[in-house]
Amino acid sequence: MSAFQREVLVRFGHCDAAGWVFYPRYFEMISDFVEDWFEDGLAASAPGLFHHKQILTPSVHFTVDFVKPTRYGDRLTFNLWTVKAGTTSCELRIEASHQGELRMRAKQVLVFISAASARATPIPPELISRMHRFAADAEPQPPPHKKPKSRPS
Amino acid sequence: MSAFQREVLVRFGHCDAAGWVFYPRYFEMISDFVEDWFEDGLAASAPGLFHHKQILTPSVHFTVDFVKPTRYGDRLTFNLWTVKAGTTSCELRIEASHQGELRMRAKQVLVFISAASARATPIPPELISRMHRFAADAEPQPPPHKKPKSRPS
Amino acid sequence: MSAFQREVLVRFGHCDAAGWVFYPRYFEMISDFVEDWFEDGLAASAPGLFHHKQILTPSVHFTVDFVKPTRYGDRLTFNLWTVKAGTTSCELRIEASHQGELRMRAKQVLVFISAASARATPIPPELISRMHRFAADAEPQPPPHKKPKSRPS
Amino acid sequence: MSAFQREVLVRFGHCDAAGWVFYPRYFEMISDFVEDWFEDGLAASAPGLFHHKQILTPSVHFTVDFVKPTRYGDRLTFNLWTVKAGTTSCELRIEASHQGELRMRAKQVLVFISAASARATPIPPELISRMHRFAADAEPQPPPHKKPKSRPS
Repeated sequence: MSAFQREVLVRFGHCDAAGWVFYPRYFEMISDFVEDWFEDGLAASAPGLFHHKQILTPSVHFTVDFVKPTRYGDRLTFNLWTVKAGTTSCELRIEASHQGELRMRAKQVLVFISAASARATPIPPELISRMHRFAADAEPQPPPHKKPKSRPS
Repeated sequence: MSAFQREVLVRFGHCDAAGWVFYPRYFEMISDFVEDWFEDGLAASAPGLFHHKQILTPSVHFTVDFVKPTRYGDRLTFNLWTVKAGTTSCELRIEASHQGELRMRAKQVLVFISAASARATPIPPELISRMHRFAADAEPQPPPHKKPKSRPS
Repeated sequence: MSAFQREVLVRFGHCDAAGWVFYPRYFEMISDFVEDWFEDGLAASAPGLFHHKQILTPSVHFTVDFVKPTRYGDRLTFNLWTVKAGTTSCELRIEASHQGELRMRAKQVLVFISAASARATPIPPELISRMHRFAADAEPQPPPHKKPKSRPS
Repeated sequence: MSAFQREVLVRFGHCDAAGWVFYPRYFEMISDFVEDWFEDGLAASAPGLFHHKQILTPSVHFTVDFVKPTRYGDRLTFNLWTVKAGTTSCELRIEASHQGELRMRAKQVLVFISAASARATPIPPELISRMHRFAADAEPQPPPHKKPKSRPS
């Protein structure tokens, strides 16, 4: 199936003194985007999980490449795929592009935690089945033969 | 030689609604810490490089593990080692611990860029020699035999 | 005429360790909201003014009351009125409510600046006339007879 | 008595695409500075109040002037005076200067809240007496005869 997708406008406050997106702001965009995925893609509001089920979904890992710089006013298209949906954690692939040009790609691992015990808790089964709708292996990976020139954020 | 080291106090504004450090704030801490390393470790002020030499040092890669959660009021000890110092880029290893317990570790790759051309520019030679003072290979890596239990940022 | 209006979802990253919106995040919301007003209300994209006309619109004044606390997951309705549109500066009234309950109100003064000279520059006339569409005096002020109980950001 | 004082270095991440401090970052600096005042000026750690006494100190009001722009690498001197120390709230005056030139001044009102009841709670008496050490009325206000030219945050 297709990726979960949202458009994100690069704001004045996202950019640093060089006029490019400051990398901590990219992680804020990712956090908001993953919240949107919970809400609209998994039909499980993140605030609802937090307030009503005391479930938190902290990130335990990121691998991120800032492939090309992004400027104030650019409109980024964010895409998200589920790479793995395990018992208590899931791995996501996230990419942000501008007019078809890749700007940022990330692997993110989230763990489901009970706020009460501060321990890992099983991902609710209905969420796992919905996560599979965004499975990355349903589509071919983009060919990585050309290593993008490094520049960025 | 020893790592470059700074203590960072976890502020109210670093923490999310769960009371733990929100991961984009970790990247803000890293950005400030690397600025301190330029200023105090490399004797090359980052604002000076920017204002007087039009040199920027954007990050092009991160691999990050949030090993254990960190709370409001914790005092984190940040350590930085130079893993590689190439012609136009360098790779850093950064760790944050609380009372000897590892909380976050990161690999970061920075590229030196000329703001005028937006292209990679050679790292000034005096900086490279100073970077070597913090070389990671001068000391043994911490044994990774016990994989830390994953929990949050 | 009516106010310029947008809905803003309170994100995990907006909230502090107490679970309430952290006040610096309110100012980020205001910054984004005013950018939306330029784009959609004034038909003058803020990035366009910046990139093509080298016009900046820094804030020189804020008076802000955080009337009631706001929590993660709340949907805030932001409203904006033009109080004054002078030669080089304008004064805005901004309010954020949740389900009709006022949470934050602000007076903000923006100045138009030429990035080249770093001096005040006249607001383009077409913007002034569009600003008048959101004039606050066209509608009665909300009666301030009951001073809201002070509590938090 | 003298003001509570700290020096704050303007970081890359504090600045926007224009190279000036982005105003929400000023509020982050204020939040950190007030935490330092609690810790070092009032001998009452803000994390301690939060974790051990469930006391929160949300801000309910700000009046802020951004008198002159501030750039990446500037070292700001922050000063804080207590204007009022009431039963459950206090009013502070905060100023940030660079090399003697005023850049930002703020009036901030904080309320002491019990996290359990979410209601105002009396400021502990020992804090009130310590707040008086930084009383603003002990010293003359700076003469406001010359209104500073407005320019940015």
